[in-house]
Order: sequence, then C-alpha cells, then structure tokens
Amino acid sequence: MSWKDTEAQTQTMVTKTFELAGAFGPVPGIYREPTEASGRLVLLGHGGTANKEAEYIQLMARVLNERGIATVVIDAPGHGERLDSSIAPGPDTFEKMWHGGGGQKAALSDWRMTLDFIEAEYGPRATGWWGLSMGTMIGLPVSATDQRIQVAQLGLMGTWGPNGESLRELAPEMTCPIRFLVQWDDEIVPRDACLELFGLIGSRRKTLHANPGLHSQVPLFEMRESAAYLDKQLG
Amino acid sequence: MSWKDTEAQTQTMVTKTFELAGAFGPVPGIYREPTEASGRLVLLGHGGTANKEAEYIQLMARVLNERGIATVVIDAPGHGERLDSSIAPGPDTFEKMWHGGGGQKAALSDWRMTLDFIEAEYGPRATGWWGLSMGTMIGLPVSATDQRIQVAQLGLMGTWGPNGESLRELAPEMTCPIRFLVQWDDEIVPRDACLELFGLIGSRRKTLHANPGLHSQVPLFEMRESAAYLDKQLG
Repeated sequence: MSWKDTEAQTQTMVTKTFELAGAFGPVPGIYREPTEASGRLVLLGHGGTANKEAEYIQLMARVLNERGIATVVIDAPGHGERLDSSIAPGPDTFEKMWHGGGGQKAALSDWRMTLDFIEAEYGPRATGWWGLSMGTMIGLPVSATDQRIQVAQLGLMGTWGPNGESLRELAPEMTCPIRFLVQWDDEIVPRDACLELFGLIGSRRKTLHANPGLHSQVPLFEMRESAAYLDKQLG
Repeated sequence: MSWKDTEAQTQTMVTKTFELAGAFGPVPGIYREPTEASGRLVLLGHGGTANKEAEYIQLMARVLNERGIATVVIDAPGHGERLDSSIAPGPDTFEKMWHGGGGQKAALSDWRMTLDFIEAEYGPRATGWWGLSMGTMIGLPVSATDQRIQVAQLGLMGTWGPNGESLRELAPEMTCPIRFLVQWDDEIVPRDACLELFGLIGSRRKTLHANPGLHSQVPLFEMRESAAYLDKQLG
C-alpha cells in the first residue's frame, strides 16, 4: 500500500504511480501534481473498457494541472491492470468486466481508500470529481456518498446500465454543484435516460451541456470548459 | 425613418433611439455602441409581453458593450410602444399581441429593415443574435433566413406557441453556430418542446445549456456566459 518506484517530473508536473491494497484486490493509480504547491485536487474516473492511462484522462490531468490542480486516477474495477486476463475488453464484455471486478461496491471502496491515502500524504484539500460514462457510473455514487467531494463534472450516463437503478436512487442525494454533459446522438446510453438522470440529481446548482455527436465525440471545448468549471468551483 | 433626438452618452457607451417606418407600422428602437469603435453588432430580441427597455435587455446591452460589441433592440410587433392600447399586456393576451402586431411576418420585416438601417449608418459588421423566449420565436426565423447573422444565442422556446410550426420548419435551415438555453422547470414552454426544437436545429455547431428553475429564472451566470459566447464567436 504505497508509492511505486516510477516517478516522472516535467517542468510543470510531477507524476507518481501507486498501488493500494483494496478490499477487492490491488488498486493501481497515478497521482499528478503541479510542481508549484496545489491546494486543490480532482479525482478522475475513466470510461468503460478504458483505463487510467486513457488519452483523454491524460488530457484532463494536463489541463487541470495547468490550472494548478492535482489529479488522481485509478483503474476501475475489472479494468486496466485489474482486467481478468480471460476477458477481451470491449462493449460486449463491459458488464462482465464491471461485475467481475466488484462493480459499484468495489468502486466506492476503492475511491474512499484512494482519497484517504492521498489525504494522508498531502492533507485534505478542496476536492472535485471528473468522470464521464463509467466515470459517472462511479462518480455519482462517490460524490453522493463522500462529503469531501465539493463539485462534480459528470455526463454521458443515464438511468441505465449495470448500476442504473443505484444511480436513480442516489441522484436525489447529491447536493454538490454539478455539470452534466450529454451527447445528443449518443448511440450507447439513450438520451432520454441521460436527461432523466440529470433531472433526478438533487443538487440545487446543476447545469446540463448537450452537443451533437456520438457517445465518444465530446467536443474538445467542453473538455477544456469542464476544467475551467472545476477550477472555478474549487475556488 | 431616422434617429430621434434622444441620445445619451456615458463614459463607455453611446445610446441612440430611432424610429423606422416599417411595413407593419412604426418600429421604435435603441442602438447602443461602445465609445471605442466597435466592429461587432448583436441584435437583441426581447421576450413576450416585455419590450425594448426590459431590464435584462439593458443588462445584456451593458455586458456586450463591456466586450466592445454594439447592440440594437426594437419593440417587437404588438409590444412596447407598438402595443394596441386596448390590450393589457400579460400571458393571457400574448397571442393577441403577437398576432395583432403582425406576428412572425412583421418581425422578419422589422429586423431586416433594422439591420439594413444600422448597416447603412455604420457599414456591415460581424453580427449575432441574442434572444430568449419570444426573442427566439423571432430570432430563429431571422437567423435562419438572414445570412448576415453569424451566431445566435437562443432558448426558452420550443416547437410551441403561435409560430411553433414555423419554428419546426425553419430550425433545420439554420447553419450558424447556436447556443440554446433551457429552463428545466419551465412552466410556460414545455421542456420536451424545447428539447425537440434544439434537436431540429440544423447547425453543426450547437450547444444546449439547461438549468433548474422556472421560465424567467435563467441564472445570471448564463446571461454573462451568453455574452462571452457571442464575443468569442463574433471573433
């Protein structure tokens, strides 16, 4: 339960990898912080069948870092280094990966442990969540149940999928400010299910942004604006 | 068909009133420009039963002015100085006001004339539209049919109301970038009708922003961001 050897430093960012002994098996992760001390942290949740090193996760880590915000990402249950080697990751095997890894229960346990670990190392900081698609399947329950999360960028998810019923139940519990992305032509998560989930979120301050395009075609400007949003909300 | 006497100047803004001889009667308007020369113009469409001097129109004129953008607003058909004195303006009389003033046909004629007039005075400039509710009932047809409009901030309207069918027909004709506001708890224009209208808009670049609240409870940050959006799009 500690940092791994690998550490990298650029002019503006320090990257450290770690592995924690989770209740559902080892949880490998990457922590990045600006070389200048950072008083803010964002938890990054990657999408289904992706992993902690997905390109858009690296992009978000970079743009948040440019705003002086540290980030942490872990492989989700059944994903990345935690993938069951008998499963080929893909849309058809996603539910198998999710359930095989322990699903929402594991994800909640992993993230509580991860945030505990990072806070033990660096102290408590203003903390937000960023995660789309499976990053919302996980991020909504995390944000709804962990009061340390002060703001969440969610989206590309609805009252749908393997934990759709949990999302439906937990959404009204949410109180922190939310921004929620919808892809109008989402071919994976039905638009109406996404709109329904947004509607159910209890937070008084919540804003939905919708753009044309398929599930994975989130415009780059929304990615950048999501960083600006978290930056502003984390104060 | 000319400027009226009234003119006011603050440190940052020149305000001029005018009246044009429209095909559907006199069209009174207000033109405002930054004291520093402005290469950009936004047409402001006010909401139903309001008029060219509504507080939020003045707010938008001011925030656009702060960004170096000139604005022009006119009383809509049957509204403001064009109100039939036998009608008390209100939600119940809105359709009567709209139709009595000549409706969409008059609005299209008015705005073409108004933009012609302003361009004759100041030359052609990068031009956008800002208008919610009736400001979209008018702004969508104007933007869809006048190629001088390069970007439009619309919202609070759907495939609904006295020109709902026209909006449905014209939306696919739109090509300029659009931002579209929805109030999630809109008690006047049904949310589904708003979402349907957004879906029908033909523009490749269109983004919907939705927030909780009633029709008239658009958050102030969205008003400010709508100015930032037009500013960016008008280059």
